[in-house]
Amino acid sequence: MERFIQRIAKKAGDAVLEKFGKFGVHYLKSEHRGDAVTKADLIADKIITSAIKKTYPSHGIISEESGRTREDAEYVWITDPIDGTFNFATSVPLFGVMVALARKGIVELSAIYLPTTKEFFFAKRGKGSFLNGKKIHCSRVTDFTVSAGIGPTWLRPRAIKFMSRLLKHSENMNVMFNGYGSIAVDAAYMAAGRRDWFVGFGAHVHDYAPISLLMKESGCRISNAKGRPWTILDTEIVAANPTLHKQLLKLTKNV
Amino acid sequence: MERFIQRIAKKAGDAVLEKFGKFGVHYLKSEHRGDAVTKADLIADKIITSAIKKTYPSHGIISEESGRTREDAEYVWITDPIDGTFNFATSVPLFGVMVALARKGIVELSAIYLPTTKEFFFAKRGKGSFLNGKKIHCSRVTDFTVSAGIGPTWLRPRAIKFMSRLLKHSENMNVMFNGYGSIAVDAAYMAAGRRDWFVGFGAHVHDYAPISLLMKESGCRISNAKGRPWTILDTEIVAANPTLHKQLLKLTKNV
Repeated sequence: MERFIQRIAKKAGDAVLEKFGKFGVHYLKSEHRGDAVTKADLIADKIITSAIKKTYPSHGIISEESGRTREDAEYVWITDPIDGTFNFATSVPLFGVMVALARKGIVELSAIYLPTTKEFFFAKRGKGSFLNGKKIHCSRVTDFTVSAGIGPTWLRPRAIKFMSRLLKHSENMNVMFNGYGSIAVDAAYMAAGRRDWFVGFGAHVHDYAPISLLMKESGCRISNAKGRPWTILDTEIVAANPTLHKQLLKLTKNV
Repeated sequence: MERFIQRIAKKAGDAVLEKFGKFGVHYLKSEHRGDAVTKADLIADKIITSAIKKTYPSHGIISEESGRTREDAEYVWITDPIDGTFNFATSVPLFGVMVALARKGIVELSAIYLPTTKEFFFAKRGKGSFLNGKKIHCSRVTDFTVSAGIGPTWLRPRAIKFMSRLLKHSENMNVMFNGYGSIAVDAAYMAAGRRDWFVGFGAHVHDYAPISLLMKESGCRISNAKGRPWTILDTEIVAANPTLHKQLLKLTKNV
C-alpha cells in the first residue's frame, strides 16, 4: 500500500499540473471564494478514488470532492485531491495533493505531493517523515522572537483574533509571518523544517489526517488551540517543536 | 537591450535554480534573518553585473549585492539578483531575479524572472507588461470585501500597524491575505492579476525600480502610503487597480 499511495498521489498531481494555469474556476461550493472547485479537482479526485475502488474495493473513502463511502471499513482512504484550489485557480503554484490511509481510525500512511516543485512528502506511522525519500525533521528553532511562522490567509473571525494577538505579541521582535493559502504546503514546509510554527483554522478530516501524521512523524507537536490532542471536533491546528509549541499556545488560548 | 535584459535575468535565474535547496546561508548582512545572503545571490549578481560591464561598459549599475557604480550615467541598470533570499535559503520556492534599466532616471525596461515556475515577467515603458510574451493585466476586482491581497511578512512596527488596521477593517468580510516574503513574487502576481492589492514596507530602489514599472504597465496604480507618487524617499508601496487603490489608502494613511 506504500507504493500505491505514492503512485496515486503522484499520478493525480502530475495530471493536475498539466492543467495548471489553463483552467478557470469550475464552480463554487458556497458563496465563499475560498471554496472554489476547478475541473482539475475533479480530475484528481477521479484518478485517486477510482484507483482505490479498483485495487481495494472493500476499503472506505473520504474525499473532499466526492464525499464518503464505507466509512466504517477497517481501512479508510482520506483525500483532498487538490488542497489550495484558490491558488491553483489563480495560477499561484502553492497547492498539493493529499492522500492518507487510516486503519481502525488511526492514520498509518500519509502522502502530500507538491507538483510544481516535484516534492513528494511521505510519512509512515512510527517510521518518520520523508521528502523524496530523504528523512526530514521539524524545525529546531526554539526562540520565538526570531522565528518564521505560517498562519491563516482567510480573514475570518478566529483568524483575525489570533493574528491580532500575534501582532501585539511580536512587537520589538524579528518574527516572520507567512500566509500561503494551502494547508498541504503549510504542513509540508513544517515537516521539512522550512518554517518554525503553524497555526491554522477551519481544517477538516480530509486535511487533518494527511497533515497530522506528516508533521508528527517529523517531530512536530500538534494540538488544538487549548493544547489538547486534536480530535475530529477541533477545527484549528497548532504545530511546532515542543518548545515553540508551548509558547504558541499562549497566543491561541480562547481563540 | 530588450533581448539583453531578458537573457541575463534568465541566465541568472537558471543558475540560481540549480543551487536551490542545496546551499546554506552564506552570511548575514545584519542581525536580521531577513537579510540573509546565499552563495547563489553572489553567483546571480556576478552573472548580471559582469554581462552589463562587458556589453555596456559606460552604463551605471545599482545592485543589492555589489553596490553602486557610475550612478550618474545616462543608462543605469538596477538589480536585485535574488529577491526573497530567506525563502531561497530555506527551500521555499518563492523568489525572483529582478533587473531594470533606467535612462536619465526613468525606468524604461523591467524584467522579473521566477525560476521555479519558469515565468518571465517583462515590462517596457508605454508598451505594457508581459508574462512569457503574453500581455497581462492588473486585477479587475473592485470590491474590497471579497478581495485577495498581498502584504508584508516581517512583523516590523509599520507592518504591524498596517496589518492591525487591516484585520479590524476586514471583520465580517471575505478577504484573503497572503504573505509570500518576496517582493518580486508579489509584484509579478499583481501584474498578472493573480491577487488584487499589495502593500509592502521597506522597499529600496533595487526593489522598487523593477516592480514599479511591471505593475504600472499592467494597469495597477502605485503610490506611497499617503497616495502620492512614489519617490526615492518612500519606503512603502501601495498597489492596486485605481478603484481598490483608493480604498486601500484608508488603511495605509499614517502607517
